[in-house]
Amino acid sequence: MRCQVLSALINYCLSINQRLKNEKPMSFYPPERTLMGPGPSDVNPRILSALARPTIGHLDPVFIQLMDEIKELLQYAFQTKNELTMPISAPGSAGMETCFVNLIEPGDTVIVCQNGVFGGRMKENVTRSGATAIMVEDEWGQAIDLNKVRDAIKSNPNAKALAFVHAETSTGVMSNAAELCAMARAADMLSIVDTVTGLGGIDVDVDGWQADAVYSGTQKCLSCVPGLSPVTFSERAAKVIKNRKTPVQSWFLDLNLVMGYWGSGDKRAYHHTAPVNSLYALHEALTLLKEEGLKNSWARHRLNHLALSAGLATMGLELLVEESARLPQLNLVGIPEGIDDATVRSDLLNQFDLEIGAGLGVLAGKVWRIGLMGYASNPTNVRLCLAALENSLIKQGLAIAGGIAISAANAVYNK
Amino acid sequence: MRCQVLSALINYCLSINQRLKNEKPMSFYPPERTLMGPGPSDVNPRILSALARPTIGHLDPVFIQLMDEIKELLQYAFQTKNELTMPISAPGSAGMETCFVNLIEPGDTVIVCQNGVFGGRMKENVTRSGATAIMVEDEWGQAIDLNKVRDAIKSNPNAKALAFVHAETSTGVMSNAAELCAMARAADMLSIVDTVTGLGGIDVDVDGWQADAVYSGTQKCLSCVPGLSPVTFSERAAKVIKNRKTPVQSWFLDLNLVMGYWGSGDKRAYHHTAPVNSLYALHEALTLLKEEGLKNSWARHRLNHLALSAGLATMGLELLVEESARLPQLNLVGIPEGIDDATVRSDLLNQFDLEIGAGLGVLAGKVWRIGLMGYASNPTNVRLCLAALENSLIKQGLAIAGGIAISAANAVYNK
Repeated sequence: MRCQVLSALINYCLSINQRLKNEKPMSFYPPERTLMGPGPSDVNPRILSALARPTIGHLDPVFIQLMDEIKELLQYAFQTKNELTMPISAPGSAGMETCFVNLIEPGDTVIVCQNGVFGGRMKENVTRSGATAIMVEDEWGQAIDLNKVRDAIKSNPNAKALAFVHAETSTGVMSNAAELCAMARAADMLSIVDTVTGLGGIDVDVDGWQADAVYSGTQKCLSCVPGLSPVTFSERAAKVIKNRKTPVQSWFLDLNLVMGYWGSGDKRAYHHTAPVNSLYALHEALTLLKEEGLKNSWARHRLNHLALSAGLATMGLELLVEESARLPQLNLVGIPEGIDDATVRSDLLNQFDLEIGAGLGVLAGKVWRIGLMGYASNPTNVRLCLAALENSLIKQGLAIAGGIAISAANAVYNK
Repeated sequence: MRCQVLSALINYCLSINQRLKNEKPMSFYPPERTLMGPGPSDVNPRILSALARPTIGHLDPVFIQLMDEIKELLQYAFQTKNELTMPISAPGSAGMETCFVNLIEPGDTVIVCQNGVFGGRMKENVTRSGATAIMVEDEWGQAIDLNKVRDAIKSNPNAKALAFVHAETSTGVMSNAAELCAMARAADMLSIVDTVTGLGGIDVDVDGWQADAVYSGTQKCLSCVPGLSPVTFSERAAKVIKNRKTPVQSWFLDLNLVMGYWGSGDKRAYHHTAPVNSLYALHEALTLLKEEGLKNSWARHRLNHLALSAGLATMGLELLVEESARLPQLNLVGIPEGIDDATVRSDLLNQFDLEIGAGLGVLAGKVWRIGLMGYASNPTNVRLCLAALENSLIKQGLAIAGGIAISAANAVYNK
């Protein structure tokens, strides 16, 4: 009896102790994931280390030097000489909004191509800028049909801009940016290009395309932390911004003001407080890209994509995008009949600390999106992903032979 | 002769080598500054270390937990139960814009108090939202005159909101937020409060004030890296946002959409990619604040402010804001006759790696802004700043006795 009371008392004390512990706020330690979804992708440790360097002021002369270097490195990544090239201090969606609210005015017409989620978001941006969006729609998973765009341009010769997604993050589709930009220019329209998922993974040739406004993200093939959006504007676009009739509806994204800070010269006017540490990280990410070289980076993305595809094929898993339009950095994989989407993704996350992406919008439940972006585009990740998928699919009763997928990938590497 | 040729050759090779080295892109290593300007402030090493933890996905279940914790910690910091409390994925200016574009519609009238730079920025936000700003102006360096505001409310009974700056970063002035919010509520207007520099350093009592929309920044008294803007909205404000007649002009900042991601429950809809690592840092910053306790943090800010003031007084340097309106975390110091602003600031930066702030707008060249914010609010920084200023002012010929300032500060600490 006494023993029971004692034991109850001890338990009570332990429980109080636990509650006290729980009341103390706790630091957060994330698990170590392998990120093979549609982004963020794995961040190179060199970039994480740059991120954690001591913060300095956003008007410190040393920081101004850093900004100049970032601008130059972004010009390298975008393959452009555009003076108006910089990172917006917010994620890719804000980069998109920067392009629309600066170039478009109430009453304008914009032709918007939609073949996935992000064309739809462009439409939202157009209408919220007080303009009219003429939609050119293609099936999700298909590249933009150039003929349809040609027709839309013919029917709307006074449209101010043609907006499209070069690398559709929701479908893994690459569209023909060179042709689309050329069509816009021939019709004297501005081109607005979303290449959030493209930059660093495939050819983004801003000057070659004569693109007018291009935005990207840091958390895809640049393998940097999410939160910044590199943008670049042609001289033609810069003139349009300077000569607007109405003020830009966003103060924060008004490039006429932002340029006072990101422009050239020693004197930089304070506009907003720059995200200093994130910019350290972006600088390191771009430095890594330059060390590797653009072409080598594209080739690496392509090779790992081929190896992954070969492995997936052994399991009967199909890439849903036709070969010519596939983004090597983002693979759209059909979910086999009878296999539960969420179960497999949880399996991968819980058993392998491996994240792959779910389908978005009309493709939800029908596809996985397997990213091989930036630092995450490497043979180890390809092998891990194949092994994990094989394991999970066999567990769910799919009749496939185990152990073959990795060999198929290896064969691609050993060619 | 042969020796000269050899030497020339060697020099040539060395110079080529140097050029090759220079062409290799280089990582960026910032100097280690002490940040005593108007922000960013010194970041606690615990926060920098949290920042560099491995990135995980923005839809990872573990990340969703982190978001819930951040929300709770922000509610603690803001002293509110507001459900609609979260960090905006961009700097303080975007937090400001979030409040205006979500609450204000074209045709609305907003009473805006201006007693520094940021009231002017509020005006910009009002007009860019298609609304009319009724300005209530006070001298820069003065608190907002409540009588003027009362008159403006009387003259504009149909105004939708009263907007004001609680803690003016450009002048170091604190205004009476409790009274101003009460006046707004009595007149059935929404209150919009800028406390970018306030949160964590002085009492920000969102529920006590019955404030409707409050925004802050991470890089001031939270001592976190710049790039995020905590915001909180009352239920009344949330209803106004839900019942808008027109869509929010910004897609990125539309809280009706953002809430699908930051709302409660297990299912979070993707809106934009959250700045994952910056949110690790914010979580750690808020954890540190909770560990210390709000009141202890305010008391620490006040004590260091008193010590700094005592030291400055020995040099004849005056605080320009009257005592009752002084922000302890941001001290507006008049520049003595004959002393060159820029020379002193360069001196501090180059000799002591110490950053203090210049005057903004009408106060440029007339004042310094010395921040004692968050982690940077400590006795060592107070002493460093006093010693550095003393040294620089004596060098410039100001007739003051050296070595007294620190003793005066110490006397405050030893009380």
